[in-house]
Amino acid sequence: MVATVEQLAALVSGRLVGDGKVSIHSARPVSEAGPGDITFIENDRYAKLLRTSPASAAIVGPHFRVKRPTVKDDLPVIEVDDPIAAFIMVRTHLSGEQKPRWTGVHPQAWVAPTATIGRDVAIYPFAYVGDQAVVADGSTIHPGAVIGDRCRIGRDCMIHPNAVLYADVTLEDRVEVHAGTVLGGDGFGYRQANGRHVKIPHTGKLEIGNDVEIGANCTIDRATFEATRIGEGTKIDNLVMIGHNNQIGRHNLLCGQVGIAGSCTTGDYVVMAGQAGIKDKTQIGDGAIVGAQAGVHRNIPSGQQVLGSPAIPVREQRRLFQMIARLPEMHRQLRELSAQIEAISAVVPLSPNHDGTVGDVDHDHDHDVDPTGF
Amino acid sequence: MVATVEQLAALVSGRLVGDGKVSIHSARPVSEAGPGDITFIENDRYAKLLRTSPASAAIVGPHFRVKRPTVKDDLPVIEVDDPIAAFIMVRTHLSGEQKPRWTGVHPQAWVAPTATIGRDVAIYPFAYVGDQAVVADGSTIHPGAVIGDRCRIGRDCMIHPNAVLYADVTLEDRVEVHAGTVLGGDGFGYRQANGRHVKIPHTGKLEIGNDVEIGANCTIDRATFEATRIGEGTKIDNLVMIGHNNQIGRHNLLCGQVGIAGSCTTGDYVVMAGQAGIKDKTQIGDGAIVGAQAGVHRNIPSGQQVLGSPAIPVREQRRLFQMIARLPEMHRQLRELSAQIEAISAVVPLSPNHDGTVGDVDHDHDHDVDPTGF
Amino acid sequence: MVATVEQLAALVSGRLVGDGKVSIHSARPVSEAGPGDITFIENDRYAKLLRTSPASAAIVGPHFRVKRPTVKDDLPVIEVDDPIAAFIMVRTHLSGEQKPRWTGVHPQAWVAPTATIGRDVAIYPFAYVGDQAVVADGSTIHPGAVIGDRCRIGRDCMIHPNAVLYADVTLEDRVEVHAGTVLGGDGFGYRQANGRHVKIPHTGKLEIGNDVEIGANCTIDRATFEATRIGEGTKIDNLVMIGHNNQIGRHNLLCGQVGIAGSCTTGDYVVMAGQAGIKDKTQIGDGAIVGAQAGVHRNIPSGQQVLGSPAIPVREQRRLFQMIARLPEMHRQLRELSAQIEAISAVVPLSPNHDGTVGDVDHDHDHDVDPTGF
Repeated sequence: MVATVEQLAALVSGRLVGDGKVSIHSARPVSEAGPGDITFIENDRYAKLLRTSPASAAIVGPHFRVKRPTVKDDLPVIEVDDPIAAFIMVRTHLSGEQKPRWTGVHPQAWVAPTATIGRDVAIYPFAYVGDQAVVADGSTIHPGAVIGDRCRIGRDCMIHPNAVLYADVTLEDRVEVHAGTVLGGDGFGYRQANGRHVKIPHTGKLEIGNDVEIGANCTIDRATFEATRIGEGTKIDNLVMIGHNNQIGRHNLLCGQVGIAGSCTTGDYVVMAGQAGIKDKTQIGDGAIVGAQAGVHRNIPSGQQVLGSPAIPVREQRRLFQMIARLPEMHRQLRELSAQIEAISAVVPLSPNHDGTVGDVDHDHDHDVDPTGF
Repeated sequence: MVATVEQLAALVSGRLVGDGKVSIHSARPVSEAGPGDITFIENDRYAKLLRTSPASAAIVGPHFRVKRPTVKDDLPVIEVDDPIAAFIMVRTHLSGEQKPRWTGVHPQAWVAPTATIGRDVAIYPFAYVGDQAVVADGSTIHPGAVIGDRCRIGRDCMIHPNAVLYADVTLEDRVEVHAGTVLGGDGFGYRQANGRHVKIPHTGKLEIGNDVEIGANCTIDRATFEATRIGEGTKIDNLVMIGHNNQIGRHNLLCGQVGIAGSCTTGDYVVMAGQAGIKDKTQIGDGAIVGAQAGVHRNIPSGQQVLGSPAIPVREQRRLFQMIARLPEMHRQLRELSAQIEAISAVVPLSPNHDGTVGDVDHDHDHDVDPTGF
Repeated sequence: MVATVEQLAALVSGRLVGDGKVSIHSARPVSEAGPGDITFIENDRYAKLLRTSPASAAIVGPHFRVKRPTVKDDLPVIEVDDPIAAFIMVRTHLSGEQKPRWTGVHPQAWVAPTATIGRDVAIYPFAYVGDQAVVADGSTIHPGAVIGDRCRIGRDCMIHPNAVLYADVTLEDRVEVHAGTVLGGDGFGYRQANGRHVKIPHTGKLEIGNDVEIGANCTIDRATFEATRIGEGTKIDNLVMIGHNNQIGRHNLLCGQVGIAGSCTTGDYVVMAGQAGIKDKTQIGDGAIVGAQAGVHRNIPSGQQVLGSPAIPVREQRRLFQMIARLPEMHRQLRELSAQIEAISAVVPLSPNHDGTVGDVDHDHDHDVDPTGF
């Protein structure tokens, strides 16, 4: 599709500076944009990228100064409050009509006769919908996805290919589950009897709130008795593991490969960076931030940032990292001090009771903590 | 289903204390239980939870003292040796008849004509069973699961949706493989030739013992030539990776996101906590415990507990963690001692040979270890 | 199949030492080989294993000395430059004719009418090929694999069961994608607006070069606008996560459970050991080696080896590990020195200004780094 800069400025309600008659064919980021393209810059720091860009127009922020030495004299720009959002809108517009979404139940899908399917639902080939499952209006079940018995899929949900929902999983509205993710599997719970691990049946559920998005190849387990819950608006990256009985708050961000053992709770707006691990039964307060690869083994108050394994507040951890980096220097210093003291002792007459031998035992105690944790 | 407390006490062979005529409709954990429910407490520590619970009955341990100030006078209790086990039994009983399990080969499944299918087998839509595969009596192959050529599935196995078994994987009896798990993939083995990584064909097998349970989205690779093996009764959590040629012992517990590189062996009753990583060719003795996020790069003797990355015995590691936490204090002390010595030196006449300069070089050696390990 | 040692020596162009008439039925590694088997040893270090092996022949390296006391007098050996490669060739030969590969589109697969399918393609039951997708000559799409709209699969590619390619993913030739892997999923990108995380649409692509192999249950995300790219010849182990916009170089080796956040670049021949994590926007030079469980948060120059979390050059990190191990000793030393200085101070008259109190504040600064990183 083709549009003039003027038309695009109108589309995004932006302020046009420069020639609005220039024709634009597509929208590309500045590193890729060529003649006929419109591009964008996030803020003035990147303004210099426009100087050498062959793009035909740009979307810029509200305080963008068209410094004539830095950008081409005749580059038309559209000033908006939010350049990325406007760029995405333009890009979608220029990429042309979206094919209308296919709906229906494909004959090569399998839907149990006892399942309830809403309006405008798409169920693709090789998707499986179990007994008494409900798929509400506007939802899409992609190829190979499996919806277990008695699951309830809300409105406008998107279940990507080969995702699996065990029985009794509930999704509210606009939940997106990416490919290969497994929801509602049994938790990892055993009891030992006669030298064997005997499985604790997991008869609980999994409940996922509105607007949750779950990345690819994640696993979220059902509860032992009650329900594992993921709060509204929480976003989960790929390969994240959330164990049984967890109560995850609203609007959390859980980055790639995070692992949360069982029976933890998190508040709202918690962030966990990549590969962080949370010990079972840990409570994490609102707005807490867990650093990458951190190993969290005790409760985190609201707003606290932690780092390291075992994790401690980030300021303290950074200080320890600095100290560790200085260890060779400290070690050297210690030896120098020893030599100096030896030299001094050689010339200072000391009473026999002050010969430097230290008799007191070490009072560090090992606390009797769970050996599998920290 | 409804039952009296008396009937439930008989069901679990427990001792009834209180009114046995009370009607119970369902079994719920104490945090959820309401009127008409039976609940349980694991031990006396949680007895106070019963005080405020509206539950109509409780299952308790053998030494439970019905302290009349703490629980309701008229709360009927069932005393048993194992409250959780009894609760699960009661819960199953009250949830009513289980629908009899569906069996058969669904017409939308694909089973190779050369495959052998036992009695009471269920093969769901979109399941695939390859050439010369064997599925023994009582096993279930869920939707979308793929059983490769020449695989042998023992009796009463459960293969959950979209799990994949490459060719030549053997499961003994009562093995449960959760959704999305991949068994028998090629190991990560290459040889460099002319600047390219050339694949080493993996013509070995994967053999999994009786009563093994494998969580969701795990991967266990086949061997290069012989067999990767998982011993009887071992339980594996989600997103665990077990590389080629590993020989995992019996009754191990491998928690979420554990990674075991190639050619390791573990004894019996080994436990690995979440996100632990094991270097290739490591040998881990019976009953060893590997802490969360530990990085194991050398053999662990039987019964040893290790922690940290690199992992060392847990007592030593905890001591080092304590020492690291004291580093700022040690750093301060060092500076104080320096200042004191400087002060002393100013008033003590030292011979020129004792000026504190230390001439000996540092004797720390870097061992010539595999650079990709620790 | 059966062959004489002489015939096998000819097959691998090796030098026969001993009786060439011995019949060989199969090829097994030395730990498993019995009578009638040929085995191999990689180098002289393992020569002693042949002494007790009941194998009927062995493949050995070029400088192998047939030390008559150590191996059986009459053991026929085949000397070659590369014993493993020769063994694999012999093993393949003895395992008999490979069944000719099945080709065709199975009637229980689903291929969009607008898709283009080349010659000698195999599309198995329950595989799904979307609109305008292209599958070039010689490629195999295994059961349950999903090829999204407009994907382009090159020649002789192998897509294993239940792997998922979202729309617009491009594979060049001879790419192997293992079971359960998800390619081209949306990146983890949100913007906050009114207290909610609003998804940034990912309209970019994923491009994978010639001869790339990707293990099981991995995830590689598409780019926000441009393309995530994996360079020719790179090999990726299981459960690896590669985020959006990454530009991975050629002939990298990424081991199990590695996680690479968004917008990183790696050079050629980079190696990352298991469970390593890379912060977003990091640049890693040619031939760099990242150790197991390392946490990389800053750029790594070409050829550098790093270790630890946060990661630093491996020599420095090993030195720090040694220093940390000595902390209890340093701590003890510090206390001894304190005691000695106290003793000295008791007999040395000091001026009031030199009492050892240190007035200067600590000048360590916390740098204002992204709190979710290191």
